[in-house]
Amino acid sequence: MQEKLIDGKAIARKIKTELKEEIEELKAQGITPGLTAVLVGDDPASHIYVNNKAKACKKTGINGEVIKLPKETKAEELAKIIAELNARDDVHGILIQSPLPKHIDELGMILNVDPLKDVDGFHPMNIGYMLLGSPIFLACTPFGVIRILDDIGVDPKGKKVVILGRGNIVGKPLAAMMMQKWEGCNATVTVCHTGTSNIIDETKQADIIVAAMGMPKFVTGDMIKEGAVVIDVGVNRVDDPSKKKGYYLCGDVDFDSCLEKVSKITPVPGGVGPITIAMLLYNTVRAAKLKLVNQQ
Amino acid sequence: MQEKLIDGKAIARKIKTELKEEIEELKAQGITPGLTAVLVGDDPASHIYVNNKAKACKKTGINGEVIKLPKETKAEELAKIIAELNARDDVHGILIQSPLPKHIDELGMILNVDPLKDVDGFHPMNIGYMLLGSPIFLACTPFGVIRILDDIGVDPKGKKVVILGRGNIVGKPLAAMMMQKWEGCNATVTVCHTGTSNIIDETKQADIIVAAMGMPKFVTGDMIKEGAVVIDVGVNRVDDPSKKKGYYLCGDVDFDSCLEKVSKITPVPGGVGPITIAMLLYNTVRAAKLKLVNQQ
Repeated sequence: MQEKLIDGKAIARKIKTELKEEIEELKAQGITPGLTAVLVGDDPASHIYVNNKAKACKKTGINGEVIKLPKETKAEELAKIIAELNARDDVHGILIQSPLPKHIDELGMILNVDPLKDVDGFHPMNIGYMLLGSPIFLACTPFGVIRILDDIGVDPKGKKVVILGRGNIVGKPLAAMMMQKWEGCNATVTVCHTGTSNIIDETKQADIIVAAMGMPKFVTGDMIKEGAVVIDVGVNRVDDPSKKKGYYLCGDVDFDSCLEKVSKITPVPGGVGPITIAMLLYNTVRAAKLKLVNQQ
Repeated sequence: MQEKLIDGKAIARKIKTELKEEIEELKAQGITPGLTAVLVGDDPASHIYVNNKAKACKKTGINGEVIKLPKETKAEELAKIIAELNARDDVHGILIQSPLPKHIDELGMILNVDPLKDVDGFHPMNIGYMLLGSPIFLACTPFGVIRILDDIGVDPKGKKVVILGRGNIVGKPLAAMMMQKWEGCNATVTVCHTGTSNIIDETKQADIIVAAMGMPKFVTGDMIKEGAVVIDVGVNRVDDPSKKKGYYLCGDVDFDSCLEKVSKITPVPGGVGPITIAMLLYNTVRAAKLKLVNQQ
């Protein structure tokens, strides 16, 4: 069964090793890629995410900076800080850690980020460029899914890819990418969601299933066909008093019942998660390179 | 068979009648919606399209203006004209007629249009807002497809919608719309294209098929299931020396072989075409209203 497991950490390490070389080359040209994360409020999970991103930056040679702001920060104050980051030459990537406090509109705030520094790929301008097939930055998690398939030698071209979930972070952008005539994409894409009448009709035919709807263990073995590739983007906390923390983490896929049928599957944790951060670093390096090209 | 035919002209008339009332109300508030089309070069088909749009404006009470420029117009000159239109208070909608001469990059030029006047819905910003589920303007042709389904009482919610083609004008934006949790959308969407291994596997299961790949009479009766709704967005010229013009127009659907099986079908011409123009007028009225709201 071990050979069916997709080792997200190993793929992420490989990506970071490749990036390190590119970063060395950039440094030789006098440029150190810089990524600034802005964190508003005291959500504990967000603090962990941001710290992990900063650590990953450091390891690969990117200047990682974290700006921590109190949860009372006003929208105008945050917008002003983003404007300063837009203007800074040493900052190539800006990320606004989600969620923002409720008094700040997230989409409205992302509009303040220079699209050329929007390494999360969340700015409507970048989402639009992507759907039109001329992307600047691809959103990290769906980009990571494409990278995983490439790494394990599964070409989605012409295959039936079923995406479960239509969120703005994964489902919709992944669908937009997978349907493009790009290498590593070019799939026949179907998007299922809460409105879908009979999800199993679609999943049963899927060569590749990407689960990203946020429902613990939703995809079970009887829903998939023999030999399917299953990518689990879900991260759900399930209450469990027997655990020290009072919960355990699981994906949108019922790993145990799927394992026998799949040809490849990502675990949770250790699957898509580590690669998402690697793609953020990738986008930051790309942002630095873009700036170099634009200066020439 | 007559009751299976979707009368695009009748639906377009209905939309325009509704718009006329809204335009009267706007005029009573001192605002006449204005749409300016910019046409570069002497492509005969483009001249016909633009003139048709101008006529439709006039009929509904919109100030239609056409700026015709020689094909030698430089990109900077065109950009300057667009900037002037962006600044004009009486112009609520701007459309750059495609195709532009080859020396002008179309996507690059659309970036010059104020997204709040981009009534074609082609600006990456508007494409992005749409995919994110917060649209300002929806691209006219896919918007028209949604409007047709609404008019004939077919709710795509939960149904399997198969879109053939992944162009920037129809296929991709329609997929992006149809997968949203919006009234009149909320469908299980599949996008097929030249990369799809076996299109018939998908079309055979489709409740609604939208053909927009630009291949004459591609969809035949044996590819669809009994009772399917077929929307034909294709407009193809097929050489025919027996015709006066030397060609005839047909869609992407083989109308004759599909007619018996479908529950509803659009003809070509007289199906989607007239509604596309109506949606352009709709977007122009919306642009005028948005401006009114933003001023208040």
